[in-house]
Formats: sequence, C-alpha cells, structure tokens
Amino acid sequence: MRIVQKFGGTSVADIERIQAVAQRVKAEVDAGHQVAVVVSAMAGVTNQLVEYCGAASPMHDAREYDVVVSTGEQVTSGLLAMVLQNLGVQARSWLGWQIPIHTDSVHGKARILSIDTAELVNRLEDGQVAVVPGFQGLGEDSRITTLGRGGSDTTAVALAAALKADRCDIYTDVEGVYTTDPRIVPAARKLDKITYEEMLEMASLGAKVLQTRSVELAMNHHVRLQVLSSFANTPGTLVCDEDEIVEKEIVSGIAYSGDEAKLTLVGVEDRPGIAASIFGSLADASINVDMIVQNVSEDGSTDVTFTVGRADVDRAKQVVENDDAIVCREVRADGQVVKVSVIGVGMRSHVGVAKTMFEALADKGINIQVISTSEIKVSVLIAEEYTELALRSLHTAFGLDSE
Amino acid sequence: MRIVQKFGGTSVADIERIQAVAQRVKAEVDAGHQVAVVVSAMAGVTNQLVEYCGAASPMHDAREYDVVVSTGEQVTSGLLAMVLQNLGVQARSWLGWQIPIHTDSVHGKARILSIDTAELVNRLEDGQVAVVPGFQGLGEDSRITTLGRGGSDTTAVALAAALKADRCDIYTDVEGVYTTDPRIVPAARKLDKITYEEMLEMASLGAKVLQTRSVELAMNHHVRLQVLSSFANTPGTLVCDEDEIVEKEIVSGIAYSGDEAKLTLVGVEDRPGIAASIFGSLADASINVDMIVQNVSEDGSTDVTFTVGRADVDRAKQVVENDDAIVCREVRADGQVVKVSVIGVGMRSHVGVAKTMFEALADKGINIQVISTSEIKVSVLIAEEYTELALRSLHTAFGLDSE
Repeated sequence: MRIVQKFGGTSVADIERIQAVAQRVKAEVDAGHQVAVVVSAMAGVTNQLVEYCGAASPMHDAREYDVVVSTGEQVTSGLLAMVLQNLGVQARSWLGWQIPIHTDSVHGKARILSIDTAELVNRLEDGQVAVVPGFQGLGEDSRITTLGRGGSDTTAVALAAALKADRCDIYTDVEGVYTTDPRIVPAARKLDKITYEEMLEMASLGAKVLQTRSVELAMNHHVRLQVLSSFANTPGTLVCDEDEIVEKEIVSGIAYSGDEAKLTLVGVEDRPGIAASIFGSLADASINVDMIVQNVSEDGSTDVTFTVGRADVDRAKQVVENDDAIVCREVRADGQVVKVSVIGVGMRSHVGVAKTMFEALADKGINIQVISTSEIKVSVLIAEEYTELALRSLHTAFGLDSE
Repeated sequence: MRIVQKFGGTSVADIERIQAVAQRVKAEVDAGHQVAVVVSAMAGVTNQLVEYCGAASPMHDAREYDVVVSTGEQVTSGLLAMVLQNLGVQARSWLGWQIPIHTDSVHGKARILSIDTAELVNRLEDGQVAVVPGFQGLGEDSRITTLGRGGSDTTAVALAAALKADRCDIYTDVEGVYTTDPRIVPAARKLDKITYEEMLEMASLGAKVLQTRSVELAMNHHVRLQVLSSFANTPGTLVCDEDEIVEKEIVSGIAYSGDEAKLTLVGVEDRPGIAASIFGSLADASINVDMIVQNVSEDGSTDVTFTVGRADVDRAKQVVENDDAIVCREVRADGQVVKVSVIGVGMRSHVGVAKTMFEALADKGINIQVISTSEIKVSVLIAEEYTELALRSLHTAFGLDSE
C-alpha cells in the first residue's frame, strides 16, 4: 500500500514530538507500506517568521515573504529525515523546488499546478521514505511559493493524488471529525466515515479540522482522506466517496460559524437591476457575500438582507452607503449572529430535514433571521447568544447524540 | 563601481539591525554603485538549528543537516530584500540554488566550484540589489550544501571574484585589522592596508577577523577585501596586493594562538626514518602537526618536540605511545604554551627581524621553546603566562605602538 502521512505544527512542536512522529512513520514502513510524509513547521515558528516580515516592512513583497516563511517546514523536513534514519528507516527530505511541486506564481497563496513524481516513485519503490515540507512549491518564476495558511493539508492531498496513494492520513490534534463541536455539545460523536461533499460543507461552515481547499482536491482526485490524532492510538474519520458508505445518515453533522455579520438595507427602491447594483459594488470591493434574502415588495420598496465576513462588515456598509446607485432608507449592521447548518448527503433522498430543523429551533423560541439551502445542507442565521442551545437541540432532534 | 557587501550575524541580529544594514546598502546604491549583499543568519539562529540537529540524531546525515542549517541565512536574505524595497531600493533575494552557486557535494563543508553570474549581472546593471544568503550552495547532487562555519565570508569573496567586483566589504563587529589584539595591547593600531599574505598569516595564526579560506580565495582572484565595522562609520582595513601598498612596514602585525599544545619525545632512538614514523602515524590519525624541532643527537638518541592542536594532544600522545615503531624514554605533553608570530612582507628584503624578536623576548626573560619561520613570519612557542608581556614588548620593539 502507498500512504501519504501529514503531520501538523503541534504534532512536530519539538524534537520529542518529531521522534514520536517518526515512530508512526516507521510503523507504516514496518507494515510493508510505501510512505511519503508531509510536515508543517514546528508550532510557533511560522508565526515568528510572519512577525519578522511584518516588522521588516508593512507592505512586503510576497515573493520575499515566501522565501522567509517557507523555511519553517524546511527545517522540520530535514530534522524528521534525520530522526527516521536514526531509527534505521531510509529517508530523505524533498523540498518543493527539488521535487518539484509546480505552482502558479501567486506568491503567498499559490495553487499547485502539477507534481513531478517519477523520481519520488522510484525512491518509494526502493523503500525510501520521502519527507516533504508542506505549504511550499516552485513558482513559474522559478522562485519559492507558499500555498497560504493551512497549505500543508493541500500539499499532502495533492501529493497523494499525484502518487496515486491508497490513503492520505492527516494527523492533527483532534481524534477525527465529529457530528458537531464536542466542546459545545458533549453528546457529539466521532464519525467513522463522512463523504467529501459533507466534509466540504463542514469545513467551509466552520469545522476547522481540514482546509476546504484540501477537501475539494481530495474529492476531485478521489483521494481517501483519513483524519486522526497524532496523540492517540484510535482510528480516525475516513473522508471518502459516497459509495464507500453503506449506512448513510440523513444528517451527518451540524456546523456553525461565528465569522459572519448581517447587513440589512431597509426600504430599498424595488426596481429591476437593484440587486445587481448592490452585489456588483460589493464584488468590485472584493467583499464576499454569503446568504442573501429579499423581502416581498411593499409600496415599491423592499428590504434586502445579506451576510458578509465579520472583518468586512464596516467596509461593506461604507460601500453600500457611498454608492449613489443604491437608494435605501437605512443600512443596519449586526455582528451578533451565527450561522448554524445541518449537513448530510441523505437529504437528497429524504424530505423533511428543513421542517425538523425549523421546528426544533421554534420549540426553543429561537428566531430564524435568514435561511439558505443547498442540495446537502440547510443553513440558518440566528442570534449569536443561542448558539449552544441551537446546536444541542438540533443534535438531539436529528438523532445524533451518542448513547 | 561594483561592490559586494557582507554582513555577519551580529550585524543582522534583529530587524532593527537589518534596517541599519539596509541603510548602508542604500548609501552605496545612492552613490551610483552596483551592489550585491551577502548575509549571515541572525545571531544565535544557526546555533539553535545546529542544536536541533544534535538532538534529532547524534550521527546525522550531513545532507539533511545542510537542509536545516541553511535556512537561517535564507530568512535574513528575504528580510533584507523586503527592508530594502521598503526604502525604495530595488532588491531581490537569490538563494544558493537559484543563482546557482555550484559546490562539490561534501555536505557540511562544501567548496564552491563556480557561480553562474549572467543573470545576476543583468540585474545589477539594471540597478537591482542582489541579496544572497551566505554559507550555502547547490551540490553536484542537486541538494543544498553548506560551506562550513564562517562560510559566509567565503561566499562573499567568491561572489566578488565571479562578479569581478571592484571591492568586497566585510562588515563585522571590529573596526578592521589591528597590529595585534587591542584587548591585550592597548597601543595596538588599526592598519589601513595589509597584504593578502600577511592577512593569511594573521588569520591562520589566530586573528579571528576573517576566515583563512576567504583570504586565500581573495588572494587567488585579486579581490580587494575591506574589513570594517557595521557599528561605526570609520574606514576599515583594506586587504590587497602588495603593489597597492607604497610604504611597506617590515613587520605589519603580531599574532598569537593559544590553541596549541607541545609534545616532547625524550630519548628517541636516532635512526633514519624515525621522523617519518612519528609524523606518519600522526597523519594516519588525522592529527595536524604544526611546529617541529629535533635536537642534536647525543649517544645515538635525540629529543623531538612538536605542536598539535590542543584538542588533539591526548590522542596524539596515545598514538605515539602505542606505536611500536617509535622507541623513546618518555612522552611529555604541555598544554600551557602559546605561539607568538611577527608577520610582515617587508621581511623578504630586510634581515634582522628574528634577531630583534629574540632579543626583545630575552630582555624580558622569556624562554623560547620552539621556533619556526616562513618567508614572511617568525613564530615562537613560549609559556602561556608570558603572552601579554611578549605581545607588548614585541609591539614596541617593532615600532608598532600608536603615538
């Protein structure tokens, strides 16, 4: 079997933990598997390097930023290779430019274009472990690029796809993917399996276990992803194609995100093209809009409500207010909101999920401000203070509580 | 004019100092010069990385060691490029593998084979500053190599040679090359100029301003080296060809080294081939021997005295004692010695330097244990306790004291 293993910053925080990681790698090698390992920087190192860049120059060249911050992963890769060799495991580090991992030249948030695997495959077949620093690549300008924060997950999945690996194990500091946040809902259960589509919704809706981009990539290339803890010896959660999951739940998980804020344009002139004006202006200002709802028109005017990232709310308000093409009585901003979503591929074949959700929230007297749905999820925007109550009652209502 | 500037670890210890370095670079750019800058790792960083390697594995792969320790200089190069850009100076970092600086594959202490300068020269001519991390290169195995401790000086000189630079400025934490150690002899003077040959003797005899290898390289390629302080605004010392120095002193400087120890083989059987036996055995054990003296034979036996590095003295004693081919009454080791040397190219045309030296030492009652000479230096081994007295009296005897 060919396996890609990825270890995050807390898993390689110091030499002792790197030694523990090496034991996990050795276990797979001893089991007869071919192993490529992707490593993050030691915990805290990247932050220190980013801080240096900020101190060096407030508006720094992204190309030089990449030169500086990519060193963290480079150090870990060299150290892990040494520790593996010390355990008698054949290993060498492969930097992004050595493989190479080709990316575009959008420094600081580059995208992987292709990975040359011929030599890596030779070495893997010879029993040598490849230790690859995550987060880095070689740009079309022949300079070091980085993939943006959390990019090591993306490196691991892309490498697994390129190597046609049988599995990509993402070691992290949680034991897998849960039905919802166990810190808020003690009855939350770890899932054995989850589909890519569900994981994608979970990730983009606030579950911080995996990077959205890496899940997309895994889905597109059918990479079987396993999320598991580097601090425990329990099986994790497998993220895979739907047909690998025999018993599908209607709802697999409940996610929430407090990163949103609500804007309401009260008394907007209701004419054709008004929505295009509003959301065109916001798009021009590079502000992402998520949920949108428009009330029924009364007296030729309407209310338009939408959500944006909380960091963008003041700027979004300004954009709308300063645009002469947008006429409205008032712009109201509300940052005290949370988006709660129930997610499950089973929704495709089962009706009534939205009804169950709305009833459960109504039973607790929780007012729904905005609703949005997709094929496999229903999201509602509610007041932030109800987060815990909503998550717990939905978890129970959909039968997710552990026995 | 085309200039290479090199800044050591204390000169780039933190962001503030990197900003001060950038001002020095900018001053040369503003004066219309083309500038390439070679930087070391921020003070302390390399030691930390070396420590990690030691903790990771006691016998580590030198190739992985190079992957880890080369990151220190990489970070500084990116940061300095950013700071320069922030000052309005065009700049970019050029890593060893990007230029590339081709080296052999002796990881951990690689030698530079060649430097591809075509693209660098284009950029310099366009007014762009090249920021080059010192100490690193690209091995014949396409992996990162490092040049060994102090290798950044070597990078700077090799780059200056390859770029046919008009000058190579080595910024350090002292103001230049002194007639002798000013901490011991307050009357020591900073030299305006010194020849490569003299500098080479000074460097190899204990003056720690410049790495021996970098001076050799500068001599072979006629690179005009300037040693100056990054903390003061005074002119430094120029290391150059002899014909650039009009008024040559007979003696330019006095160096000392306490890194040696003396071994005496008492009562050695005096037969042809005995010296070959002794020094052959030591060479086989990779022990460097420096000064050698053999007494006149009496009764078919003689005394042989020589010096080795202080760290090797116990091992050297063992080698000699365990070698059955070496017959002697006793092996005496003495670590309490110091080698004092007077150096000057003027000796070639002036006699009497040795006489002046021996008289000055005799006047102070200092016993000379071993003598060795070369074309431009006279070295003596004396008891360590006389170091200060010897340096001061020789400094005066050769007219080097500042007025």
